[in-house]
Amino acid sequence: MPINPEAAGSEFGPTEAYWTSKDCLLYAIGIGAGTDELAFTTENTAGVDQQVFPTFACVAMAGDRIRKDGGKSPFASVGSFNPAMLVHGEQGITLHRPLPVEAEFVSTGKITGIYDKGSGAVIAFENSATAKDSGEPLFTLRQSLFIRGEGGFGGDRGPSAPKVDLDRAPDHVVSYTTRPDQALIYRLSGDRNPLHSDPSFAKMGGFDRPILHGLCSFGFTGRALLHTLCGGDPARFHSMDARFSKPVLPGDTLTVSMWVEGDRAHFRTERAPGEVVIDNGVLSFTP
Amino acid sequence: MPINPEAAGSEFGPTEAYWTSKDCLLYAIGIGAGTDELAFTTENTAGVDQQVFPTFACVAMAGDRIRKDGGKSPFASVGSFNPAMLVHGEQGITLHRPLPVEAEFVSTGKITGIYDKGSGAVIAFENSATAKDSGEPLFTLRQSLFIRGEGGFGGDRGPSAPKVDLDRAPDHVVSYTTRPDQALIYRLSGDRNPLHSDPSFAKMGGFDRPILHGLCSFGFTGRALLHTLCGGDPARFHSMDARFSKPVLPGDTLTVSMWVEGDRAHFRTERAPGEVVIDNGVLSFTP
Repeated sequence: MPINPEAAGSEFGPTEAYWTSKDCLLYAIGIGAGTDELAFTTENTAGVDQQVFPTFACVAMAGDRIRKDGGKSPFASVGSFNPAMLVHGEQGITLHRPLPVEAEFVSTGKITGIYDKGSGAVIAFENSATAKDSGEPLFTLRQSLFIRGEGGFGGDRGPSAPKVDLDRAPDHVVSYTTRPDQALIYRLSGDRNPLHSDPSFAKMGGFDRPILHGLCSFGFTGRALLHTLCGGDPARFHSMDARFSKPVLPGDTLTVSMWVEGDRAHFRTERAPGEVVIDNGVLSFTP
Repeated sequence: MPINPEAAGSEFGPTEAYWTSKDCLLYAIGIGAGTDELAFTTENTAGVDQQVFPTFACVAMAGDRIRKDGGKSPFASVGSFNPAMLVHGEQGITLHRPLPVEAEFVSTGKITGIYDKGSGAVIAFENSATAKDSGEPLFTLRQSLFIRGEGGFGGDRGPSAPKVDLDRAPDHVVSYTTRPDQALIYRLSGDRNPLHSDPSFAKMGGFDRPILHGLCSFGFTGRALLHTLCGGDPARFHSMDARFSKPVLPGDTLTVSMWVEGDRAHFRTERAPGEVVIDNGVLSFTP
């Protein structure tokens, strides 16, 4: 069955899920945090309160922490496709408050668009999560998935990202090196797609070897933004949107360049000079 | 209250606990396994069945996976002491079968000895775990904890390890490098003692910086033994006993030397030439 553009507008959920302090610690290590970031990687360091990386929101609803499934898969109405051909297109998060170290929450979502890019199909989602007890908004996720080879079904091309002129030198440049086994740690936060771990599966998907999760690079990038622009304080990190433009390989060094304009910053991430892996980045923050 | 030698013989448990496939994967990464060991670090690699490192037995009964606590802490009758002064003395494991990737099990234990070494006290335990449904034996753990500064209570010195003559060159030497953040990953398998993560706590314990968990070094060592002597097959790995002789710092390279004698191997682990961190090692295996 090819992609069905009529699925746009479908709603899914509500799904009830939770996370624990341990999930946040594991995620922190999955996006490369270490001994210099004990507020994010430990829960019992004297004089330090545990904090949660804002990008944890992206993995909050991991399959193994769902208490009550909403029952309607977002993919049920979209059609079938080869999961080895699926890559992350765009990702956005809005934090309505700093994420607590543990939570019970309810998530609802909808398919906001299905687009035909010719070389592939794009499926755009939005999810909103609220605290189960209080109903307090926690975060909103925006994401689009790109399914290579599934274009040409005659759908709309969808919106193009506005071009941003970044021709001055960046205000900040920060590099973090991913580890050869980064995907093996990161995947324990929920996304077990073997594209990121199994060499033979990665070959089926057209890659020489397993690629890093797009959301792992997104997490490394958000970590750089948080420490560089928000003084490491999640309360100053409000929203982050970006587009995935090229795969990252485990072991790559990710260099994040930032251009600040008041309470917004544009950013992009490269795996080598000129090899942009995350672009069109916009952070909204409290300077 | 000082150490009470009368606590020897106390029994504890039964405690009911479980582990999942994810716990085994997280442990594997905690002891340094990576992309060359996908049988241990992934559960969905094509043509590869997930396997569990035998040394996972040491962390099987992590506090956050206990379903029904036996109610009697082994420490309740031992006396009180400063946990910053506690280090691992000896560790032994016997595998009655290869560990399954998930299990519900019952553990019972007893204090097998309380010894006065002058500079500190030694508390020796033994734990036996059986599968909850079948009653099938899974593993037996032997361990002793050394509490610095708590000796001199007038107790027995306890047995000394038999001296083994290892004056020939080792048959195998394998080195693995631990990571600066190794303890931060390893601790998510259950032992959250801040001696391994919090610099100020480590200083209280007399260390310049946080030290690696003894059981993490034990896991690295067991991993080297498994791959070198058992062809990576947990069914050929029967028991492993060793003594912790010196702290390991995260980032150290651990070099494991092995002397094979039939179906036994003696081993020791160094962090630098002559700086033995694990000694008196004995592995029982199927060659």
